[in-house]
Amino acid sequence: MIKTDILIIGAGPTGLFTVFEAGLLKLKCHLIDALPQAGGQCSELYPKKPIYDIPGFPEVLAGDLTQNLLEQSKQFEPGFTLGERAETIEKQEDGSFIVTTNKGTKHQAPIVAIAGGLGSFEPRKPLIPNIVSFEDHGVEYFIKDPEKYRGKRVVISGGGDSALDWSIFLAEVASEVTLIHRRNEFRGALDSVEKVQELKSQGKINLITPAEVINIVGDGKVKGVVVAQSQHIEKEFVVEADHFIPLFGLSPKLGPIANWGLEIEKNAIKVNNALDYQTNIPGIYAIGDVNTYPGKLKLILCGFHEATLMCQSAYQRINPGKKYVLKYTTVSGIDGFDGSRKESPKAVVKAIN
Amino acid sequence: MIKTDILIIGAGPTGLFTVFEAGLLKLKCHLIDALPQAGGQCSELYPKKPIYDIPGFPEVLAGDLTQNLLEQSKQFEPGFTLGERAETIEKQEDGSFIVTTNKGTKHQAPIVAIAGGLGSFEPRKPLIPNIVSFEDHGVEYFIKDPEKYRGKRVVISGGGDSALDWSIFLAEVASEVTLIHRRNEFRGALDSVEKVQELKSQGKINLITPAEVINIVGDGKVKGVVVAQSQHIEKEFVVEADHFIPLFGLSPKLGPIANWGLEIEKNAIKVNNALDYQTNIPGIYAIGDVNTYPGKLKLILCGFHEATLMCQSAYQRINPGKKYVLKYTTVSGIDGFDGSRKESPKAVVKAIN
Repeated sequence: MIKTDILIIGAGPTGLFTVFEAGLLKLKCHLIDALPQAGGQCSELYPKKPIYDIPGFPEVLAGDLTQNLLEQSKQFEPGFTLGERAETIEKQEDGSFIVTTNKGTKHQAPIVAIAGGLGSFEPRKPLIPNIVSFEDHGVEYFIKDPEKYRGKRVVISGGGDSALDWSIFLAEVASEVTLIHRRNEFRGALDSVEKVQELKSQGKINLITPAEVINIVGDGKVKGVVVAQSQHIEKEFVVEADHFIPLFGLSPKLGPIANWGLEIEKNAIKVNNALDYQTNIPGIYAIGDVNTYPGKLKLILCGFHEATLMCQSAYQRINPGKKYVLKYTTVSGIDGFDGSRKESPKAVVKAIN
Repeated sequence: MIKTDILIIGAGPTGLFTVFEAGLLKLKCHLIDALPQAGGQCSELYPKKPIYDIPGFPEVLAGDLTQNLLEQSKQFEPGFTLGERAETIEKQEDGSFIVTTNKGTKHQAPIVAIAGGLGSFEPRKPLIPNIVSFEDHGVEYFIKDPEKYRGKRVVISGGGDSALDWSIFLAEVASEVTLIHRRNEFRGALDSVEKVQELKSQGKINLITPAEVINIVGDGKVKGVVVAQSQHIEKEFVVEADHFIPLFGLSPKLGPIANWGLEIEKNAIKVNNALDYQTNIPGIYAIGDVNTYPGKLKLILCGFHEATLMCQSAYQRINPGKKYVLKYTTVSGIDGFDGSRKESPKAVVKAIN
């Protein structure tokens, strides 16, 4: 059982900044995220794209924002359960909550902050009848550890940035990379498209277009895929492979959280924005894109504000009656849980002779 | 008469970010600030001090934050009335407001956003009976344009960073700089204290401590100050000077805004935080440190959020019934009023042969 003060569901920008604000109040955080790394959409969907509306950044790449937020919160030593989806929640007699993931990891905290963004990102799966039985036996929708593919034969399908980028990356790792796409045209960053073109010319990537994977062959484990090619004449053939990785994008789903007894409106969680972004269940808050209230804007900067006010309310629940006096970081500095200290250079008091 | 869409009282971080958010909605802004430059407290009181709680910045100097916000908003070409204090407000028959400053400058807008921070910063004045009659005739509490002092004899009094920094700066500009402080000890950045020590040794700054200016001599214009020195024996003498600049710090005052008919609570303006941060007067909003509501935190990051929601509400007032669809800057880019455009590099759609 992982125990913490604030259990944060979702490790996107709002969740990460919650760690920092909670840390200022001496509260410890643990984050759960279905994706294999922190950063939410910013890391998974558009790490190399610029954002222009983060206050104080005329332009910042989404991936850099994530790195900055990780750096800003690291003094407060957050814990992470990554690649697992928060599945169930149970209220305990002492008022705390136990949250269990789809892989059975249990977490206990007096406060739960749902910073779930648009929901947990579920892969879009191709319509292949027997695909489910091969999941985790050669079929993967995310690449968590590229080393897994060293020396293996890999088939990737898809026509966007993920398919292009992973084909390029695995061309140096796998023994054989085949990229299959239903159109001749790919949609992605210009340099990625050009790099795939180059690797194809060098024979480092096998390209099959326009074509689709219509079946998987194997015996409990992937041994190959059946490809239907539709240029001039219909033909089907088998490409031998150890792994089949369909990269057709992610679609966000509120998922199991929708069954936690929270008030839901328009696929988002209703909160009390006039006070502290708490849900209808005391002790459970919803912050960032996952919540809704009158005038709600799904912007990262709003999530930062919501996280900050929420932490004050969480502090009061954890320390009832204790008065908290807001300190300015410029004046008081920051004491990390790791023993580190950040502070503004002090003024000296000194006579001049 | 200066006309604009949103008239912002206060050019601190919240006011500056309002320009950006309003600009995304095609609304133009004009800012009024009593200080001679933009940035509010961040520029005036602690430009060289680090802030640790701006989301995405593990550390940022207050002055740099101001520069970043100016850069971020400049595409939307804000107007500025600086060094003037918003004094009166009159509601017009068409629902718009006319705001007049203490220097008589008039501004008209359908929306007023008070982003006044802790209030307008008023200089702390020394207790010298005749000082008021010399104001603007040789006595200044702020240094707006250092060139004004070129070749002149200047007396500065004070013992903090402002007194130290301006003495250093003017030592190269004025014909004579005298620094007077009631203690021997100065309180400031180590390098400023050391630099004054060095300039004193070189005869470029006259230092008189412990001492106080107790009177001003002159005939409609400053000709010198009477100094009382209190070391060993009491003695008084005159230092001839063209300018006397007391730098005893600033104290924020809500000031004339307190008489605008707004609901005030604990020296702050009450707003409706459950909707749009509007005050009791429709069309007048209060955002940032100047406002209060249940759970209010006087943090810069909260001002950013409040400004953003406020702009949406202002848009609805200015364009009644018009539907606004939130666009993400990463997806849609930004069109500046100056004809500039910022946008994310587009994906290409390209066949690989």
